[in-house]
Amino acid sequence: MRKLQRGRPTEYLYGRNAIAEALRGRRRHRRLYVAQGIEHHARVAALIEQARHLGLPVSLLPREELDRLVGSVNHQGVVLETSPYPYVDLATFFSPGPTSVLLVLDHLEDPQNLATLLRTGEAVGIDGVVITERRSAGITPAVVNASAGAVEHLRVAIVTNLGRAVDDLREEGYWAIALEPGSQAQSLFVAPLPRPLVLMVGSEGRGLSPVLIRRADVQVMIPMFGRVTSLNAAVAGSIALYEIVRRALLADAGTG
Amino acid sequence: MRKLQRGRPTEYLYGRNAIAEALRGRRRHRRLYVAQGIEHHARVAALIEQARHLGLPVSLLPREELDRLVGSVNHQGVVLETSPYPYVDLATFFSPGPTSVLLVLDHLEDPQNLATLLRTGEAVGIDGVVITERRSAGITPAVVNASAGAVEHLRVAIVTNLGRAVDDLREEGYWAIALEPGSQAQSLFVAPLPRPLVLMVGSEGRGLSPVLIRRADVQVMIPMFGRVTSLNAAVAGSIALYEIVRRALLADAGTG
Repeated sequence: MRKLQRGRPTEYLYGRNAIAEALRGRRRHRRLYVAQGIEHHARVAALIEQARHLGLPVSLLPREELDRLVGSVNHQGVVLETSPYPYVDLATFFSPGPTSVLLVLDHLEDPQNLATLLRTGEAVGIDGVVITERRSAGITPAVVNASAGAVEHLRVAIVTNLGRAVDDLREEGYWAIALEPGSQAQSLFVAPLPRPLVLMVGSEGRGLSPVLIRRADVQVMIPMFGRVTSLNAAVAGSIALYEIVRRALLADAGTG
Repeated sequence: MRKLQRGRPTEYLYGRNAIAEALRGRRRHRRLYVAQGIEHHARVAALIEQARHLGLPVSLLPREELDRLVGSVNHQGVVLETSPYPYVDLATFFSPGPTSVLLVLDHLEDPQNLATLLRTGEAVGIDGVVITERRSAGITPAVVNASAGAVEHLRVAIVTNLGRAVDDLREEGYWAIALEPGSQAQSLFVAPLPRPLVLMVGSEGRGLSPVLIRRADVQVMIPMFGRVTSLNAAVAGSIALYEIVRRALLADAGTG
C-alpha cells in the first residue's frame, strides 16, 4: 500500500520479523504502530526498543486501527510506516567480483514463491536480484513479510527488459546460467557453474522465456526420480543457489 | 472435506494437477465433476478421457455446484469424489533397502510448506513419510492440491508418538538425521549421511522437538551467510533431500 503524505511516498510494512529486519535495513522510517495491550510481549517490546533507539516515534493504537492501515493481513500487532522499497539501478551490479552471484527472476508472479526464493538468496549471500515490473511480483509489503524480512537486506533492480539486462551483465563478465529442464540442460550437480554468474529462474507454469534461454551459457536442470515432473519454483531456485554455494565451500576448502 | 455417503467415507479433491495424479494413484474413485463450459479445454478434456478410461462416471455441473462441494478454493473447474487418503502403517517401512530414505515431519503445521516438501520428497523418490496427527497438517485435499498431486504417489504413515516411531525405525536399521541448527550440528555438505536414513524436519518457528533431537545419530545444519538466520522450512528440507540425492548420484557414478 502506498500513500502520498506530505508529498513523501509511504509504505506500511507489517509482521514482527519483517519489521525487525526493516529497522536494521536501509529505508527511512517514519513511525512504528503497535496494537494496544501487546506492548509488553517480549518480541514486541524488543521492536519498540529498537525503534526508540533509532529515534522513531511509537504509537499504541487499537488493533482495528492497524487493520485499517494494512488491510486483512496477519500483521501480528505491528505496523511500520516507512519509505518505499529502495530498488537499485542495474548498473549497481556492473564490475562483479570473481565470485558474484545474481538472481534473474522471470515470470515469478506468486508473491509467496518470490519471497521464499529471495529469503534463500539472502541466506546464501547473493549480490543482488533483477526482476521485471511488468510480469513479476514486486517487493510489496506482503513479499517483505513472507520473506521474514530478508529482502530488506537484498539489492533488487527492476528493469523493463530482462533480455537486455542479461546482455549487459554478460558484457560485464557474468556467465548466464538458465535453470530450465530443456533438452539442452545438464544436471545441476555436474554442470559447470563458473562465476561471476547470473542464475535465471522462471515460474513453474511458464518457465523461462525463450529470450532468456537463448542467452544462457549453461542450461541446468534438477534431476527428478518420481512421477511428478516439476518442483515448486522457489524450491528449485533454492536448490540451485545452494549447489552454487556448496561448490564455493568446496573450492575454499580445497585452496585454503 | 469428508462426508459419509452410503456408509463410505468420501473426500473431494480439486485442481487439475491434483486430480490427474489422483487418477494415476491408489484411491477408489467415485465420480469426476466438471464445470459446464470447460469440458473441451485440452487439460480438462484429458482428465475426462482419463476418468472414462477408468470407467468413472463424469458429471457436468454449473460452477456454483462445484463451489458448493469444495468451498471457496481455486478448483479450476474440476472436483473428484474419491476415497480418503490411503495412509499406510509405520510397519510398511520396516526392513529398509540399503538406500532407503524416509521423511519424519515434526510440527510442520503449515499446509503449504507440508505440500511443498512432500512434492520434493516425491521428486527425489523417497520411500515414505511419517507425520503425527496431533500437531501437523494431515494430507487434506488442500495439501494434495498444493503438492501438484505428488502426495498421491507417496506412502504416508500417521503415528501418535513420533519419538517411538523413530526408535522403531532405528531398530530396523535406519540412521536418524536431524535437520536442526543446534550447536551439535555439522554442515549438511560435509556431514555423514549414511543410509538407510530417516531425515527429521521441524517447523521454522519451533524446530524439532527435543525428543527427536535426542534420537539423532547425526545433526546437520544448512550453512547460512546472510543477516536473516533461517530458511523457509520446506526449502530447508528440500535442500537436505537433494544433498542426499547428490551423494547417491556421486556414489553411483563412482562405483558404476
